[in-house]
Amino acid sequence: MTTKISTILKTNPFFRNFTADSIETIASKAHIINFPKNHIVFLNEDPASCFYVTLNGWIKLFRETVDGAQSIVDIVTKNQIFGETAIFQNDVHNFSAEVIEDTKVILLPLALLKSEIEKNTKVAMDMMSSLARYRKQQDQEIENRTLKNASQRIGCFLLRLIDQNKTGDIIVNLPYDKTLVASRLGMQPETFSRALNKLKDHIAMDVKGSAIHIHNIRDLIDYACMACSSEFPCNDMNV
Amino acid sequence: MTTKISTILKTNPFFRNFTADSIETIASKAHIINFPKNHIVFLNEDPASCFYVTLNGWIKLFRETVDGAQSIVDIVTKNQIFGETAIFQNDVHNFSAEVIEDTKVILLPLALLKSEIEKNTKVAMDMMSSLARYRKQQDQEIENRTLKNASQRIGCFLLRLIDQNKTGDIIVNLPYDKTLVASRLGMQPETFSRALNKLKDHIAMDVKGSAIHIHNIRDLIDYACMACSSEFPCNDMNV
Repeated sequence: MTTKISTILKTNPFFRNFTADSIETIASKAHIINFPKNHIVFLNEDPASCFYVTLNGWIKLFRETVDGAQSIVDIVTKNQIFGETAIFQNDVHNFSAEVIEDTKVILLPLALLKSEIEKNTKVAMDMMSSLARYRKQQDQEIENRTLKNASQRIGCFLLRLIDQNKTGDIIVNLPYDKTLVASRLGMQPETFSRALNKLKDHIAMDVKGSAIHIHNIRDLIDYACMACSSEFPCNDMNV
Repeated sequence: MTTKISTILKTNPFFRNFTADSIETIASKAHIINFPKNHIVFLNEDPASCFYVTLNGWIKLFRETVDGAQSIVDIVTKNQIFGETAIFQNDVHNFSAEVIEDTKVILLPLALLKSEIEKNTKVAMDMMSSLARYRKQQDQEIENRTLKNASQRIGCFLLRLIDQNKTGDIIVNLPYDKTLVASRLGMQPETFSRALNKLKDHIAMDVKGSAIHIHNIRDLIDYACMACSSEFPCNDMNV
């Protein structure tokens, strides 16, 4: 099992500058766990001793108000890391994590990540680049919520799901259910439905369940990106 | 002049773990510059060779769409650093910076910051903590835009401007003009005016120009923080 985990870690860009010894050490303290749908991995303000590499499935990172309203921080899937920033927040998680589709993860000890960052400058630089990249994506997300209408935000979300070099006719499959996509975009489900319908006024498309058929990708780019400070194809996209 | 800059840098928390030698080296390559109101310090996608320590005044960091609509990334003032994250973005700025009130800044070479981070683990850890703190604040900002109404967002902004230990009667002075406050909160000026008026329906307050007199701070906390995942006093606030 240890060998298998180290092999997985070696293929993940997050660990690319870890030394071979560090990979073996961290893998020997790691565990693979299956989380069922709806499992709460941790709650906001829980003490943190682990961080996570997602192997498949989907996990929702969110914050919740006293009356139960949720704000989605991120939705992570295969090969993504989460929970690692707790090392800069006094080893406390500052969001909650809930499984939205059966998910396999690797649990790794935070303390070993911290010591690797402290002794390995390349890993520290990777960590800073990753935090800075996330900062830029959040700036873009805040901009989207300020300057784009709901239909343009849906269009932007669809553009993130496709190979940006494609042209012409394309089918995009929503990665999770529409209620969650709405929530990811900071919309009520009704707003999402209305805005998706309104998108049809601007571009030729058909919606069948989770499959969205866009007749000409260029029309979507013209419509969604006209209220954006970045040009398409762009580097500011959340995965 | 060099001595003076090094003295200023030593009092700024950003430089607290720089070695004395590094402070002297970076100070010897630094310059103090006065920027007049409306001066563009740099534009989005400009190559970056410097970062900045603000000594007074206000500088707006923003991104702009093709048709001129702006999204405010941050508004920085005394003792705040900006432009430093360009070292993680291939030495390119990913927002624009414009002076909104006559401002004095120290210009410092990015290359020296990068080499200090690479050779001094404590500085690297400070940088990561600062990026992680900013990430948490942005999560909070995205949450605010999702879950709070416009009046609650104004209330939250006012609470950031006061000593959080105060009770009872308080006067808050807006730090810059209302149009800019509106823009900082992602609102149209008309929305801001309406929402500020609506806030009076919930709490006893008087507005005279930029001075806002709140009769009982507790009422503002109860109203603004009820749609928030953080409790007051809170640590998630942007300065």
